[in-house]
Amino acid sequence: MYLVKIYVTYKQSILDPKGEAIHDALHRLGYTNVADVELGKYFEVKLEADERPIEAEVDEMCDRLLANVNMETYRYEITEMEAL
Amino acid sequence: MYLVKIYVTYKQSILDPKGEAIHDALHRLGYTNVADVELGKYFEVKLEADERPIEAEVDEMCDRLLANVNMETYRYEITEMEAL
Repeated sequence: MYLVKIYVTYKQSILDPKGEAIHDALHRLGYTNVADVELGKYFEVKLEADERPIEAEVDEMCDRLLANVNMETYRYEITEMEAL
Repeated sequence: MYLVKIYVTYKQSILDPKGEAIHDALHRLGYTNVADVELGKYFEVKLEADERPIEAEVDEMCDRLLANVNMETYRYEITEMEAL
């Protein structure tokens, strides 16, 4: 079993209005030293090993469902979980 | 300047219907080896150093705005960014 942590964020060229709103809200709460906020998605996916290479499968899952690759970019970390 | 990466996820006892929906969608796409999906939020916050300890400030920001501590839990990593 593998644990895959996937981070999906907007590409640099894409406006992030939710991140802007959170930045502004933090300033209103007094955190005026906050320079920038970007909001992304975070997935924790548990996968059984099968005959496919896991990186190829995760790339495909991100491209097909988890990220909108026109606007978003993703990265991930794979760790092997110990069997109980 | 610091870069703080914040991960907000549901507590174990809280239902995650979006994670369930993504799990089901991945199965329909043929990724039947996916055992579990949890969906969370991911923030990248850039902060200017000020006189406060940065961990105390990030904890407070999470408790007040970024996470709903009744339902969610958070963790973060702080890295110092090089000045240009």
